[in-house]
Amino acid sequence: MMMPLQVLLVAGTHGNEINGIFLFDQWKKSSLSINTYGIKTYKVIGNPEAQKAGKRYIHQDLNRSFQEESVLSINSSILEVSRASQLVNLYGEAGENPCQIALDFHTTTASMGSCLVVYGRRHADLALASLIQNQLGLPIYLHESDQKQTGFLVESWPCGIVVEIGPIAQGLLNSRVISQTKLILEASMEKIHQIKNLNLFFPDKLIIHRHIKSIDFPRDEEGNIDGYVHPLRQSKDWQKLKKNDELFSKLNGEIIRFKEDEPYIPVFINEAAYVEKNIAMSFTKRELWDLKKEWKQSLIDLVNQR
Amino acid sequence: MMMPLQVLLVAGTHGNEINGIFLFDQWKKSSLSINTYGIKTYKVIGNPEAQKAGKRYIHQDLNRSFQEESVLSINSSILEVSRASQLVNLYGEAGENPCQIALDFHTTTASMGSCLVVYGRRHADLALASLIQNQLGLPIYLHESDQKQTGFLVESWPCGIVVEIGPIAQGLLNSRVISQTKLILEASMEKIHQIKNLNLFFPDKLIIHRHIKSIDFPRDEEGNIDGYVHPLRQSKDWQKLKKNDELFSKLNGEIIRFKEDEPYIPVFINEAAYVEKNIAMSFTKRELWDLKKEWKQSLIDLVNQR
Repeated sequence: MMMPLQVLLVAGTHGNEINGIFLFDQWKKSSLSINTYGIKTYKVIGNPEAQKAGKRYIHQDLNRSFQEESVLSINSSILEVSRASQLVNLYGEAGENPCQIALDFHTTTASMGSCLVVYGRRHADLALASLIQNQLGLPIYLHESDQKQTGFLVESWPCGIVVEIGPIAQGLLNSRVISQTKLILEASMEKIHQIKNLNLFFPDKLIIHRHIKSIDFPRDEEGNIDGYVHPLRQSKDWQKLKKNDELFSKLNGEIIRFKEDEPYIPVFINEAAYVEKNIAMSFTKRELWDLKKEWKQSLIDLVNQR
Repeated sequence: MMMPLQVLLVAGTHGNEINGIFLFDQWKKSSLSINTYGIKTYKVIGNPEAQKAGKRYIHQDLNRSFQEESVLSINSSILEVSRASQLVNLYGEAGENPCQIALDFHTTTASMGSCLVVYGRRHADLALASLIQNQLGLPIYLHESDQKQTGFLVESWPCGIVVEIGPIAQGLLNSRVISQTKLILEASMEKIHQIKNLNLFFPDKLIIHRHIKSIDFPRDEEGNIDGYVHPLRQSKDWQKLKKNDELFSKLNGEIIRFKEDEPYIPVFINEAAYVEKNIAMSFTKRELWDLKKEWKQSLIDLVNQR
C-alpha cells in the first residue's frame, strides 16, 4: 500500500523540558503558525504524566525505554515502558498513524547551543542531519558504541533525529529556546519537503562529533560526588581539550586534569539530568566525513517510495 | 541561664538546590575548612528526604512550612511540617541545641547574583544584613506584606537571613555558586564574631529592595500559561522597569508591557520553582534607609546578652 509521508514531532519526552511542549501547545491552539510545508505531522507530548508531575520521568527515563522487547509491553507496570509501546503502536512505521520520520525536541542545562543528535550510523539519519547542518550550521553529535545507554525514542522510527538546545534550566520557559526550537523544526520540515520533491542539494561533507566515551564526576571512597566541573571547563561544550587541561575541581584545592594524549571535544558538560547516570560530560572526536551516496538514497527512498 | 552564642547553618531547605549541600558535605568530611571565627555552628540539610528524591520538596515547600501552628506538629503526615517542627525542636531558641541566628543558603534559576533576603522588618535581621551588605555589597530583598507567602524557616529564629545565589539550574553543581556560598558564609560569621566582640562598625545606611507585589505569567482562558518572559526582561533582575518596558511575549507576537507609572525593580525573574506559585517575577522599590540605633542594639543584645 502506498502511504503518504507523515512526520512525528515529539516534545516533552522528558517532562521537565518544557519549551518544546509550550511551542506545541501554542501551535495546537493556533496561537502561532509553523510551516510544515504541507506535510502531515503528528505533534505529541512524549511523557505527559511526567510533565504534569514536573519531572523528567515517573518510573524510568522514557528516552531509554524504547528497547526492542519493551515496545511489545503496552501493559507494563513501568509507565515509560507502556508509553513507549503506546507511541510505537500509534505512530510507528506499522502503527495506526504511520510516521516514517521522528523529530524529538529536547533541552539541556549544558551550554550546547543548538545541536542534532543521531544514534548509530543509520543512513537516512545521517543524510537528513547533513541537510539540516548545511542549512543551519548545527553540530551533529553521533551517539554510538555506548552499551550503557540504549533505547532512544528516535531509534524506533526508520529515520529520527534528536534536537538539543541549551543551556536552560529544567522547568523554565525561555524566549531564545522557544525560538530556536521553532527555527529548527521549520528548517527540518523544509528539508523533508525538498526531499519529497526531489528538489534538494546535498552537501559533499558533514562534520560529525563522534561519541567516544562518557566520564563520571570525581567520587570519594563511599561513592559520593566530591568534585565539580572546573570553572575553565564549565560551559565550554564543543571546545577542544588538550592534555593537562582542567576537568574538575575539589574544594580542598585539588584539580583533576585531562590526561589523555589525543585531543577530545567535550559535550553535555554538567547536564543536570545525567548526574544520576554518572555522566559529568562526554568526549567526542570531531571528524569530517564524506556524505555517501547510499545515505542520500536511503533518505530519498524513505520519503518518496511509499 | 547564660547560653553561648550558636548559629544554625542550613543548606538544602529545597532538596534540589545542591550547591550548599555539597559545600556542607565537604566541610563535614574535613575536605575544606571554613572559618566560623570560633563560633559554634550547626550545619544541617534542611530537607534530606527531598534531596534524596532530587526534588524541591516531598509534600509541600519546607520553606513555607514554618507556620506557628505547624511547628507544634512533629507527627504531621506532611513530611515538611514534621521536619519544620523537628528543626525547631532541635535548633530553635528553646530547642535542644539552641541557636540564636539562622543562615539559610539557597540558589535560584533567576539571575539574582548573590543577595540577602529578610522577611519583615525584624531589627536584628536588618542590622545583620546591613553589616553583610557593607562588607560584600550584596543587595537586600525585604520580603513583606505578602499574605500568600508565609512560614519561612528563618522566621522561626530570633535572627535569620536567607542567602540566594543565581542563576543556576536545579540539581547542578557549579564552581562559582559553591565559591559564593562559602564567601558569604564566612563573611557572615566574621560579622557575627565582630558583634560578639563589640568590635564592629555599622554603616549609617542600608539599601533595601522592598517587596511590593508579585505578578503571574500571562494565561489563557483555561488558566494555562500562554506567554513567557520577554527576552529584554530575562536575566535583568535588579534593573529598573519604566512604563511601557517589555515584560512578556506571546508566540502570536503580542507583547505585554509594564503599565505602571512608578518605576519598579524586578527580582526573581523566571525562577523555575515559582511557576507553581503563579509568580513570574516580583516587583520591588529600591530605598535608602537609615540604620536605626535600636536595630543595632537588638542584634548586639541577641549575640551578647545571653
